[in-house]
Amino acid sequence: MSDKIRLASIGLGRWAKVLGRSVLRSDAIELVSCFSRAEDKRAAFQDEFGVPRSAASLEELLADDAVEGVIVTTPNDTHRDIITACLEAGKAVYTEKPISTTLEDAAAIAQVVAATGQTFAVGHSARRLSGSRVMKTWIDSGRTGGVSMLEANFSNERGLELTPDTWRWYEDKAPGGPFSQLGVHHADNLQYLAGPVTAVTARTRKVFTKAEVPDAVMAILEFASGALGYLGAGWASPGIYTVNVQGTKANLRYDLDFTHWDESHEADAYSSLVSQEFGQIERTPVELPPTDMFREQLEEFGRAIRGEATIEVGVEEAVRALAVVHAGLLSARRDGALVEVAEVIEAAGAGAAIG
Amino acid sequence: MSDKIRLASIGLGRWAKVLGRSVLRSDAIELVSCFSRAEDKRAAFQDEFGVPRSAASLEELLADDAVEGVIVTTPNDTHRDIITACLEAGKAVYTEKPISTTLEDAAAIAQVVAATGQTFAVGHSARRLSGSRVMKTWIDSGRTGGVSMLEANFSNERGLELTPDTWRWYEDKAPGGPFSQLGVHHADNLQYLAGPVTAVTARTRKVFTKAEVPDAVMAILEFASGALGYLGAGWASPGIYTVNVQGTKANLRYDLDFTHWDESHEADAYSSLVSQEFGQIERTPVELPPTDMFREQLEEFGRAIRGEATIEVGVEEAVRALAVVHAGLLSARRDGALVEVAEVIEAAGAGAAIG
Repeated sequence: MSDKIRLASIGLGRWAKVLGRSVLRSDAIELVSCFSRAEDKRAAFQDEFGVPRSAASLEELLADDAVEGVIVTTPNDTHRDIITACLEAGKAVYTEKPISTTLEDAAAIAQVVAATGQTFAVGHSARRLSGSRVMKTWIDSGRTGGVSMLEANFSNERGLELTPDTWRWYEDKAPGGPFSQLGVHHADNLQYLAGPVTAVTARTRKVFTKAEVPDAVMAILEFASGALGYLGAGWASPGIYTVNVQGTKANLRYDLDFTHWDESHEADAYSSLVSQEFGQIERTPVELPPTDMFREQLEEFGRAIRGEATIEVGVEEAVRALAVVHAGLLSARRDGALVEVAEVIEAAGAGAAIG
Repeated sequence: MSDKIRLASIGLGRWAKVLGRSVLRSDAIELVSCFSRAEDKRAAFQDEFGVPRSAASLEELLADDAVEGVIVTTPNDTHRDIITACLEAGKAVYTEKPISTTLEDAAAIAQVVAATGQTFAVGHSARRLSGSRVMKTWIDSGRTGGVSMLEANFSNERGLELTPDTWRWYEDKAPGGPFSQLGVHHADNLQYLAGPVTAVTARTRKVFTKAEVPDAVMAILEFASGALGYLGAGWASPGIYTVNVQGTKANLRYDLDFTHWDESHEADAYSSLVSQEFGQIERTPVELPPTDMFREQLEEFGRAIRGEATIEVGVEEAVRALAVVHAGLLSARRDGALVEVAEVIEAAGAGAAIG
């Protein structure tokens, strides 16, 4: 038996495969089992990723003592039940973002995490992109000066393709459409860069999509630091992934070609970060050291199980990201009136999760 | 006497000189007189721009039958009285943007324009930048497809330099700081590109400036078309001037190096417009035919006086741009609650101005 940390995949769809490929790039972790209800999916997954065995039920997987931790990529509204079962069976859990669809589910997950003391990680991977890391370094070292404004946009064409047989069509499964599905990434990124968001003002519109959910979302975020943030998320255009930072000494502008997102070891090569320092006319390219966000977060998860690392994005960060989305959705329903993030967190009973 | 259209400058500060240089680039218009209270400024202006005479008072200037139209670059809160005097004296008026500080003043100006039937133009020049023109062509021709989201940011470092002896320090002179001083440009640009804005949600923050006014402003605009717009305006960072358009067929991204704004015949050369069409990974540079926004708008003004052109940006467009700012400021005071643009226009008695 290798000394690699032994993980198992639950939910064997497209995203499990993206993460599976990142595990294959790692010397620290390996997939030893997998579970999906469909036998043919299990067989195909085992075959593609060299996984030695599979489980015919969740119970069977959780009874496998060799499995140290699980990777959950099932639909968001199944997270609560599956994660709870895994944690209570003594397995560490890595779940894909968002932590859950509702803040109430997040609060329940947070309780189980606290009660079991198990390792728990949420896949807000985008903050691990080289561009995010370098922006954070610039901000923390004072190189940008004081930050007064941040802007982020994450958009793609999903809303133009949706049909009623897909879960993203429905408001109860994908609240706010691109807000919960794409915007939640930037809700984490922006708080990673600039600290906690205290209040949100937002508007949503159904412009071209036929689905229940909106395809144009814009939110204004108020940070505890004093800065303002803009978060745009659309489902009716070619893909966009940008983060802009305005500082008293320098501006930063980050732009990712999202078509390379899935292959996270290549994403940095298709990204650009430019700086514009005070009094400087030209924009200067900033070097982006290579990263591999999916591999790195799963390795961190694995090492944390063995007590050799700490989890960067756990319950608190995941709840804060999801709460920005839900505060924004509530604000949109209230015609843009400012909603305190603490209000939606408390209303969902998730206050304990953010300490 | 040349056949050039004979204009006179009122208010001989920095901006009068920027416009004066653009007049020197024109074969169609000329400056034949000028007025400022300070005799030394008049002499210096005559000398620099070869202006044959000056007037020691506004009355003297307005009594000069050779003057066909005036260029007003005095502080915004003086616009109403000066513009009224000029129009009533039978002079055509070009005024720098915004049309006025308050919508009440704009309503009064609109009444005088209607009563006198004089030619009246407002210097929302930015829509004449080549990038704006090309974006408009792409949108109108359907090349972007349907537009669901637009974003614009206009920022600079002004708030970090303000002192109490400058008018921009004060909320009553420069409402919302960068919102009325920079954002009003994009309030016009975005309505030029996507049609009328019906409602605004906005937040303002004083982050680093010592002045009365905010240095971080973000607004969400709702267009009659169904699209959402973001307007960012800051006074605490190196200069930014960007416009992004998200369409169902293509995205457009425009970026201007504002340090070349004053020399408008060179501005296009320091701008970039890139397109990202659906299914296309690479961004494609879009050619920007050269323009000269300041010269072109003043030539249009001059030719309109002679009945040879129509004014593109008159009372209606200027009121619509200013109303977006005031709706946003009201929304900010109401904790982000949506404010209808029609509400602030009607409250100021400016309804007649927008037909």
